[in-house]
Amino acid sequence: MSAVTLFGTLDALGTFVFGLSGAMVAIRKRLDLFGVLVLATATGVAGGMTRDLLLGDTPPAVFRSALPLGMACAAGLFTFFFGALLDRMQRPVMFLDAVGLGVFAIAGCQKALMLGLTPPGAILLGVITAVGGGMLRDMMVSEVPRVLREEVYALAALSGAAAYVGCLALGLSTTLAAVIGGALAVILRLASVRFGWHLPRAPWF
Amino acid sequence: MSAVTLFGTLDALGTFVFGLSGAMVAIRKRLDLFGVLVLATATGVAGGMTRDLLLGDTPPAVFRSALPLGMACAAGLFTFFFGALLDRMQRPVMFLDAVGLGVFAIAGCQKALMLGLTPPGAILLGVITAVGGGMLRDMMVSEVPRVLREEVYALAALSGAAAYVGCLALGLSTTLAAVIGGALAVILRLASVRFGWHLPRAPWF
Amino acid sequence: MSAVTLFGTLDALGTFVFGLSGAMVAIRKRLDLFGVLVLATATGVAGGMTRDLLLGDTPPAVFRSALPLGMACAAGLFTFFFGALLDRMQRPVMFLDAVGLGVFAIAGCQKALMLGLTPPGAILLGVITAVGGGMLRDMMVSEVPRVLREEVYALAALSGAAAYVGCLALGLSTTLAAVIGGALAVILRLASVRFGWHLPRAPWF
Repeated sequence: MSAVTLFGTLDALGTFVFGLSGAMVAIRKRLDLFGVLVLATATGVAGGMTRDLLLGDTPPAVFRSALPLGMACAAGLFTFFFGALLDRMQRPVMFLDAVGLGVFAIAGCQKALMLGLTPPGAILLGVITAVGGGMLRDMMVSEVPRVLREEVYALAALSGAAAYVGCLALGLSTTLAAVIGGALAVILRLASVRFGWHLPRAPWF
Repeated sequence: MSAVTLFGTLDALGTFVFGLSGAMVAIRKRLDLFGVLVLATATGVAGGMTRDLLLGDTPPAVFRSALPLGMACAAGLFTFFFGALLDRMQRPVMFLDAVGLGVFAIAGCQKALMLGLTPPGAILLGVITAVGGGMLRDMMVSEVPRVLREEVYALAALSGAAAYVGCLALGLSTTLAAVIGGALAVILRLASVRFGWHLPRAPWF
Repeated sequence: MSAVTLFGTLDALGTFVFGLSGAMVAIRKRLDLFGVLVLATATGVAGGMTRDLLLGDTPPAVFRSALPLGMACAAGLFTFFFGALLDRMQRPVMFLDAVGLGVFAIAGCQKALMLGLTPPGAILLGVITAVGGGMLRDMMVSEVPRVLREEVYALAALSGAAAYVGCLALGLSTTLAAVIGGALAVILRLASVRFGWHLPRAPWF
């Protein structure tokens, strides 16, 4: 798969799963149909929009193609009508959020590399792309964002983006590098929740 | 009226009414004079600043002309001294917010069209311009933004922007299209509050 | 010192002290090591990133140089291990925040002037650069930002930036103008807290 096609696929997938997570949060807050669509869209497109703004690629992709908005609205509508299916999973928002985190970390990192950023800058941009959507979602409903509350979150995105850049440096194909990096981020994130991993707190407080 | 003049008029008007709404919220939160001016300015200029950032038109207009800042500060000072007049209205923040919503939906949509966005992209940008100021205002005072809480809010902005684009496509003048689109957004918003319209909630939750 | 060198020094210093303030807030909220680094980084780089976005200087400096990220992470690590030293000061977050406010007001104003903004636009950009980091920090932990809560905050940044522009207009060197402007902002801010200065509230509410 070419880097551009792969990027587009990741971007659409990340928008969809973050859209699902935003819609689930909206439904739990008892918002109506349009509120669900608004939070699904905001959560789904905010990461990519921030990424494009920071890269100076304006107007961001969401204004030039119907795909991101369509994915986010489809996620919102699906959750609105069939969210009961998602709700049977133990922690659907957490799971979807983890997948979005991994996918957007790679998508952000890859677009930054395509536009000429150095590897450290690209990894940072991947992290910001990955955490942006969930951060806006949580701040809009007045919750402290997961990126601060939960143990291994930005660290999972950072690890995935760094693994992606490392795999590319080792000569792996973009597809293989993306699968390894994305999977690493999702697995680290899910494992940290499952096993209650956390980093130490300040020793003196 | 030319499209450019009309855009400038709408932009200044939207900045002023959103400035009034920000100042009212600040006064109710017992902020002092400068806090009132800060929240009036943030609410008044945030929508247009976001719009210009997303369109890549940097630095945003507020840094190049004294008009937006002047309108927002005038709104803040007016409310600070004579806000008792506004306060006699039943729900002044809601009303001013509705007018700002309608005006900025058209202003954002129109600037996007002038800069070459396609109609769907321009409508989306109109909605973001319209909801941006009020969203920052509410998030700064730690309230869940109206765009999520209230029934017909982003939907009103979306309807107004879509009507504006539709009227232009039918060959109406920009002024007439702006009046129709803006009025539709304001009326939908006010009517939804007056009559308690709301969209359905998720059937399964 | 040349204007460019001076700007770089101010920018690094502001990132460091805002990083310290973000890390202190994170530790008090019982976040773990990575959460501390995230909030230190967000607080340290948000002001400069907003400034660069608004000036259209993309990608922002933090993606092109290791310095800002390094300063913010160093601030986070220092606070994590040795924050007890800071904690002995009476109000460390307030003090560091005041220094960051003064330094970023001048750095933002100076970069805006270098990129051709008019003096009023440059002063406004200085204020936004100065308040941006602390605002994101406070909003991420669901607190009403200092810029609204506290009396002389944006006003201190505004005074410092205006003094800086005034000194340059009087023919002073950039270094001297920066010292005067920055010191004025910090002193005004600290004095307002020490002596409980505040501006009047709306007379009618």
